[in-house]
Amino acid sequence: MRMSIATVCLSGTLAEKLRAAADAGFDGVEIFEQDLVVSPHSAEQIRQRAAELGLSLDLYQPFRDLEGVSEEKFEQNLHRLEAKFKLMQRLGIDTILLCSNVGTATINDDELFVQQIRRAGDLAQQYGVKIAYEALAWGKFVNDFEHAHAIVDKVDHPAVGTCLDTFHILSRGWDTDAVEQIKGEKIFFVQLADAAKLSMDILSWSRHHRVFPGEGDFDLVKFMVHLTRTGYQGPVSLEIFNDSFRKANVHRTAIDGLRSLRWLEDQTWRALPAAERINNLELKPLPEVAEPSGFDFLEIETGRLGETIRVLHQLGFRLGGHHRSKQDFQLWTQGEVKIVICDRGPTGAPTTLSAMGFATSDPQAAHARAELLQAETIKRDRQADEADLKGVYSPDGIEIYFSGPSPDGAAAWLGEFGVDKHDLEASLIGGIDHVNLAQPWQHYDEAVLFYTSLMALESHGQDEFPSPIGLVRNEVMRSPNDAVRLLLSAAPEDGEQGAFLDAAYPEHIAFATDDIVAVAQRARKRGLQFLEVPENYFEDLQARFDLDAEFLAQLRENSLLYDRDDQGEYLHFYTLTLGTMFFEVVERRGGFAGWGETNAPVRLAAQYRKVRDAERGIPK
Amino acid sequence: MRMSIATVCLSGTLAEKLRAAADAGFDGVEIFEQDLVVSPHSAEQIRQRAAELGLSLDLYQPFRDLEGVSEEKFEQNLHRLEAKFKLMQRLGIDTILLCSNVGTATINDDELFVQQIRRAGDLAQQYGVKIAYEALAWGKFVNDFEHAHAIVDKVDHPAVGTCLDTFHILSRGWDTDAVEQIKGEKIFFVQLADAAKLSMDILSWSRHHRVFPGEGDFDLVKFMVHLTRTGYQGPVSLEIFNDSFRKANVHRTAIDGLRSLRWLEDQTWRALPAAERINNLELKPLPEVAEPSGFDFLEIETGRLGETIRVLHQLGFRLGGHHRSKQDFQLWTQGEVKIVICDRGPTGAPTTLSAMGFATSDPQAAHARAELLQAETIKRDRQADEADLKGVYSPDGIEIYFSGPSPDGAAAWLGEFGVDKHDLEASLIGGIDHVNLAQPWQHYDEAVLFYTSLMALESHGQDEFPSPIGLVRNEVMRSPNDAVRLLLSAAPEDGEQGAFLDAAYPEHIAFATDDIVAVAQRARKRGLQFLEVPENYFEDLQARFDLDAEFLAQLRENSLLYDRDDQGEYLHFYTLTLGTMFFEVVERRGGFAGWGETNAPVRLAAQYRKVRDAERGIPK
Repeated sequence: MRMSIATVCLSGTLAEKLRAAADAGFDGVEIFEQDLVVSPHSAEQIRQRAAELGLSLDLYQPFRDLEGVSEEKFEQNLHRLEAKFKLMQRLGIDTILLCSNVGTATINDDELFVQQIRRAGDLAQQYGVKIAYEALAWGKFVNDFEHAHAIVDKVDHPAVGTCLDTFHILSRGWDTDAVEQIKGEKIFFVQLADAAKLSMDILSWSRHHRVFPGEGDFDLVKFMVHLTRTGYQGPVSLEIFNDSFRKANVHRTAIDGLRSLRWLEDQTWRALPAAERINNLELKPLPEVAEPSGFDFLEIETGRLGETIRVLHQLGFRLGGHHRSKQDFQLWTQGEVKIVICDRGPTGAPTTLSAMGFATSDPQAAHARAELLQAETIKRDRQADEADLKGVYSPDGIEIYFSGPSPDGAAAWLGEFGVDKHDLEASLIGGIDHVNLAQPWQHYDEAVLFYTSLMALESHGQDEFPSPIGLVRNEVMRSPNDAVRLLLSAAPEDGEQGAFLDAAYPEHIAFATDDIVAVAQRARKRGLQFLEVPENYFEDLQARFDLDAEFLAQLRENSLLYDRDDQGEYLHFYTLTLGTMFFEVVERRGGFAGWGETNAPVRLAAQYRKVRDAERGIPK
Repeated sequence: MRMSIATVCLSGTLAEKLRAAADAGFDGVEIFEQDLVVSPHSAEQIRQRAAELGLSLDLYQPFRDLEGVSEEKFEQNLHRLEAKFKLMQRLGIDTILLCSNVGTATINDDELFVQQIRRAGDLAQQYGVKIAYEALAWGKFVNDFEHAHAIVDKVDHPAVGTCLDTFHILSRGWDTDAVEQIKGEKIFFVQLADAAKLSMDILSWSRHHRVFPGEGDFDLVKFMVHLTRTGYQGPVSLEIFNDSFRKANVHRTAIDGLRSLRWLEDQTWRALPAAERINNLELKPLPEVAEPSGFDFLEIETGRLGETIRVLHQLGFRLGGHHRSKQDFQLWTQGEVKIVICDRGPTGAPTTLSAMGFATSDPQAAHARAELLQAETIKRDRQADEADLKGVYSPDGIEIYFSGPSPDGAAAWLGEFGVDKHDLEASLIGGIDHVNLAQPWQHYDEAVLFYTSLMALESHGQDEFPSPIGLVRNEVMRSPNDAVRLLLSAAPEDGEQGAFLDAAYPEHIAFATDDIVAVAQRARKRGLQFLEVPENYFEDLQARFDLDAEFLAQLRENSLLYDRDDQGEYLHFYTLTLGTMFFEVVERRGGFAGWGETNAPVRLAAQYRKVRDAERGIPK
């Protein structure tokens, strides 16, 4: 599949955009007119630069408000169009995007549209270029791709075809089945965009909230299946207007975009019946991804070893052993939960969640897939007799490893810590309920696509809740088998609380137990400092749930928070923050579906107070 | 008018919110339940703290989903409500907000609503508290304030009244005339919110995009006029859900809020017939504001005097004189334009726009009004024989002065520079077309209200355009006489271009001329470096406007940008940036209505390239 991207998706100058698109691996770009107008480089220089970078220039866009106007106005428009044809010749671009008229059209007459577009086609032919006509979702008289194509059909001109843009089709809710009715050779261009379903006017939605395929709610795989059946053989191009992309690092955005197309190509290939997989788009599949069967391990990096192992011990973990060649690494375990600690020495460096190992059936395939999805591979030292753990960096910099089982059912790397399967004694904590990762807001959508495309996790919708210094956006991502749950959180874009922000939005690991009261009591006996739960919270809980006095007293005594739904209950507590992370312990009773989101504001407020007190020099 | 604010409008802990509301000058607050639940302070402590701060606790809110349910469910709800009544007694709050049911209501029957709310009223009476029933705009069965009040009427209970919230009324487009039909004593509470007219679902609009009165599009003055006629005598309270306020500095937000109420009080007083100005709300007017008759002066502060006066001289300015007592101040003039330079010595401190003087007919009144609107007065040293210039700080820190004419028609302070009226020689530049101020995005709405309420400027709608690193939001504010035009711009919220941001979004002063070609030629002769205009821009201009070759050549030669509308033309050029500002020179031909916004992206791209090149060590 030939992959292209419109320059408007990317930040920076036109030269910077071309460079980023080429580096990410795109085959071509669409030149967005405004990017050229503000550029100090001539059309010839841009053409040459693209050629040096191995990029084709696939489309010049947009040309607006041509048809449906008086003859006098139309002649002015043709004159304007001719100037663009000349420019396209200099750029070496053979196709221009013509948007259905949104502003100046005064005459609602298909026959007139046909005549005027045909005359534009005649002119295009003289310059050896083509026109791709697209229905904008808010076009004045033409806003439906079938209508636009009916006009193209009547124009019946070799230089005039259709441009399909999934945003304009799917934002209106048009069924994409009708795409199959269009002949591939009359589709001159295809633009892809995804978007979250938002209830707002289409123009604002389109101009600000498009995202890359896989980051929104549109069914693009279905569209692509229909497209392959038309025989279309041109590029498939991203055209994303997104406020965050406009200000994000251009190289990251380009990689995110290419990942979205590779993922979509793979999904389309899989959705097609085998007989149709060989087609004009030349789709290539990725190595198949198996959902992870769980967290194999989590790694914590710290320059404050003492307080870190104190908390782990208070929660019931035991030191399993030290790595035989990497002396800075030690393993702490409880039941099947394995926490690797990377000791950075007594540097005081903050404690952070540094790596996650996912148990997968085929680590090699998972890693190969990740690399094809442009994830950056981690370079890791290892001795010849040690496990060859493959991994990549996630968008927020955490290391992601794919680990497979050894013949005896335990992870291959365990022996390097002098631990075998039998050393993993069952205890009160039996697993990892979920891991919460703090995402920079700029890369939130990228993170969703990353875990969707690499790990086959599924997004379960967005949510937000208040902290004392802004709204936190959240998305739960789960493996279909529910063995891995990631909670992605984006702190508010930088407010005026600068220093607070990182510290007030720590990440966390939530351990699972069947007896939270026992875990809490053991921890308290061992001196754990719980995150303070205000008395007002318990009073409110009582008003909301009408709990019996004894149960409520148990919650109070053990600093436990509580939630309930139709399916079950959720009891949990939080530790104080270490560096940029903390621990939660969770007991689910029955089939409770959430993860304590109702109580998150209580936690965030308490964490905010701690950070603020620390800034003011008030001791913990 | 008693002024109150809901704690949800403000960031921080409940204790911090109370402090900020009191400091800003509010009479009371509404306690938002969530703020109390997450607080470590007990109801009694909050009550005491409010008393110490002189704040009344006016409302406990919200209570949700009471009515329209089965008897069994209702009894649970009543139990929940009773717990809140007990809590209110501890807080010393006598009124609770009851929102119309949005979730659990299953029975659409006004009679049932009446019966159930009456029973809640009976219970309230036992605790000596009252219920204010409000129609949420998205209420399941009750979403209209007239409907909600009809229910209250039928309930006919001394402990049950109506709560009016302007967001819920005006977002649905309900006419506020009907407010007058409600008896004041049955209105138990009034909440105010403004909002920009947005086309999105009401719930999202309400939860994220409310703003303070005067910052949006709702006609709140009309509402207030109707409210005074009901005989209502309770507090008027702000309830604003706004993503920016949630993360902004709490003290600034509180001051902004109080300013909005003072402004609204004044506007309401003025909108009322004289006979109705004495009423239960006890409205107080502000000193009347006269629109400014122009910019009296602009002040630039610099630690790079040489390059600053070089550019002023290149633009045709002359040194008028030095201040007789403040030796660091010098005055540069051209025609009526007066630029004061504050020389910070050879420190290299960046050149910035530091003050604006507005010519007003009654500077004393303008300043008194500004102080009542909570603007901070500037403390200024002066000799006994010098003009007593009064001023305040604007939200972005620029000094704003109100200057009046002296008996001979020239500004009183001119003589302090040894300049008199006759020294102001006419030249090619004759005035100030507009001034562009860069606003931090967090204080954009605050700035709009500041200039509206202090200076009687009017907002002419918002706009946005792309820079290479994000979208820039703009708002034109003009005095009704068009003598003062301010263009407020907010750069994108911090992206990943950190260092670029300030430097890539400079402020500017746009000078007006009737002969821009002559100004440009004089400037070029004197060595001015113009901001580069790319050749692609001129080619596009030609395609868009079909300009004649000679005219286009003139634009090219003089680095002039161009725009045109039905009324006239706009020719302009930009200087390079000095510190955080630059100069523009503008010639308007005919009645052109804009300010060059179509060309702003060309400018921003060129400025971005300069900043980036400077970072890479490429010389200008």
